[in-house]
Amino acid sequence: MMTIKEYILSCKKELSPYIDSFLTGLIEERANSDRGLVELYETFREAGREGKHIRGSLVKLGYEIALGHFTGKCEKILPACAAFEILQTAILGQDDVIDKSPLRRGRDSIWRASARLAAVRRMAANREADDGGKENADDFHYGISQAICLGDVGISLANRLVIESSFDSDRKIEAMKTFIGVQLHTMDGEMLDVLMSYEKDYGDEERILKIARLKTAWYTIAGPLQLGAVLGGASGELLDAMRRYGIFLGTAFQLRDDILGIDATEAEIGKSNTSDIAEGKVTLLAHYAMKRATPAQLEQLRRIYGNGAASEADRLTVRDIFESTGPFAEVAKNTQSYLTEAADVIGEMTQNAKQAELLAQLCVMMAQRKS
Amino acid sequence: MMTIKEYILSCKKELSPYIDSFLTGLIEERANSDRGLVELYETFREAGREGKHIRGSLVKLGYEIALGHFTGKCEKILPACAAFEILQTAILGQDDVIDKSPLRRGRDSIWRASARLAAVRRMAANREADDGGKENADDFHYGISQAICLGDVGISLANRLVIESSFDSDRKIEAMKTFIGVQLHTMDGEMLDVLMSYEKDYGDEERILKIARLKTAWYTIAGPLQLGAVLGGASGELLDAMRRYGIFLGTAFQLRDDILGIDATEAEIGKSNTSDIAEGKVTLLAHYAMKRATPAQLEQLRRIYGNGAASEADRLTVRDIFESTGPFAEVAKNTQSYLTEAADVIGEMTQNAKQAELLAQLCVMMAQRKS
Repeated sequence: MMTIKEYILSCKKELSPYIDSFLTGLIEERANSDRGLVELYETFREAGREGKHIRGSLVKLGYEIALGHFTGKCEKILPACAAFEILQTAILGQDDVIDKSPLRRGRDSIWRASARLAAVRRMAANREADDGGKENADDFHYGISQAICLGDVGISLANRLVIESSFDSDRKIEAMKTFIGVQLHTMDGEMLDVLMSYEKDYGDEERILKIARLKTAWYTIAGPLQLGAVLGGASGELLDAMRRYGIFLGTAFQLRDDILGIDATEAEIGKSNTSDIAEGKVTLLAHYAMKRATPAQLEQLRRIYGNGAASEADRLTVRDIFESTGPFAEVAKNTQSYLTEAADVIGEMTQNAKQAELLAQLCVMMAQRKS
Repeated sequence: MMTIKEYILSCKKELSPYIDSFLTGLIEERANSDRGLVELYETFREAGREGKHIRGSLVKLGYEIALGHFTGKCEKILPACAAFEILQTAILGQDDVIDKSPLRRGRDSIWRASARLAAVRRMAANREADDGGKENADDFHYGISQAICLGDVGISLANRLVIESSFDSDRKIEAMKTFIGVQLHTMDGEMLDVLMSYEKDYGDEERILKIARLKTAWYTIAGPLQLGAVLGGASGELLDAMRRYGIFLGTAFQLRDDILGIDATEAEIGKSNTSDIAEGKVTLLAHYAMKRATPAQLEQLRRIYGNGAASEADRLTVRDIFESTGPFAEVAKNTQSYLTEAADVIGEMTQNAKQAELLAQLCVMMAQRKS
């Protein structure tokens, strides 16, 4: 029997070339219009290549759950799966501007890649020594500007994929309502996250969980499942069950992500493991740590957490405080209880034993993931 | 008989309260969810209030042209009109991040308004003296981050308005194809503009006109007319005529805009009249001026144009060089010839004499506008 990992891998195998050929088609169109656009769209295409394609796979799973059976290879749902992956690349590209992250998925983030290409070209044009594309402030602002635009391009492309898919119009309109609703939840969550990080507000547990629901749970689990399910003709009851399953599982996913952001190696997560600390990310982990810290520990957390120049030594200090004050264990316990709640909804989502098994395995996978 | 100015004013009178109540409804929903989101959505709502609503009005005109008659007050097309206005607010908010413009439509741009609110609150929280909300680097980055997010929110809201309008699903799907196509043209144009400004490439006339077509003509004239027309059931021939009319008129509009950017007062255009100079905006005006400048003038242009610290004295120097080397007159002549070409298409767009008259007046209005 197929495991959830095999399911996702098999979706990725179908989806990845589809996305590639969709974007390559756009690049070829742009080649007739302007050479400058080609490089930008290529940067966007490259940025999406290393993704795990979990969201795209869940669109397909949602579709198959609504149908009540598996479809095997299925061209009809592929555009909607691709839509979520392209939305993901778009949003991450803008998120990296907001978080000032140079790395994503183990390679340059979109703004950084654009800045670097610009710097290399600038040096070539001015016959300067090319020192590997060391960027100046103008190059950085150029990269940021293009990442903002490419993010918008990605949002429009994602919407286009659903709009131009081969479902009938009524169903596509319903799917777009769902998809846009998810986009708005995601943005609301992102804005709240930006706000709380800026205010260094670690005291409000309910608000921290609200961000996890809006920005992660809707976006990573509930949204993809529902988008596929609407296209499969799901009932209101099924969509509601998917919402609950997604919110529980997605919150657990975020809590796990917060732990990995402090505790994993860069090789594991494909981005800096000091960036959560440097940006002072507002997490349940940080909330508990600050609540439980001794005055001396709190002073250290205040000095390091949210300090843009956090070093490896700083990271280890924060990690030790988190270890000794107990939030790792506490957050892990919360994660477990969300996972149990998610698992309890599975019976309302499908009568198909194999589909139920995949949904159950997804819970385990989210809890144990190392990257 | 109604003039085009009266037509736009009467649309604005209907559209403006509609948009206001749509956004206010969202704000009330957010008030139940989180107080932080309320302020952000309010900033977005305020940013849209001072617009001229030309694009929204052209959506309605396109709809009425497709129908072959005027509709008077018409609730059915209002959401699509509002969609274009909200898209406009969203894109301008991100454009002001890219151009580092603190002003828009005579008031704070979205990033600046968000940064200012954050600074005021920060000072209150820390019991610092409130010096009118003077922002530090963190406040600015906060404002920029929220403007990026609010831009995405605006794009999603614009799409939602079309998706949830009361036309039948087939027609809404066609309208969305058009709308998303316009969004992609706009973004392509914006990215090319960013690229050429960064490279200070003033030598490629064809590329400068390409930006005007993509970023302005599609977005300001052809797109709004077509969106309305598709919803009114337009034929392929009508849509093609609107495309040509829009490209000609929109290019003329951009050329006029470029002149105003150098030649108008701040009060007239509602934003800084040195910002085009400060950012080194790539315009046909600059192209001609650099081509015709004496070596001494070229040296001055190179020093001032694209220099972020351009002063009023610098602006006047640039203006004088543009005056003496002839581009104002040359661009004005080009503008006129585009307008003539646009006017020539009107006969293919409508048999209704009053609608034809409005389209003709629109050409004159674009050529003579002072703001």
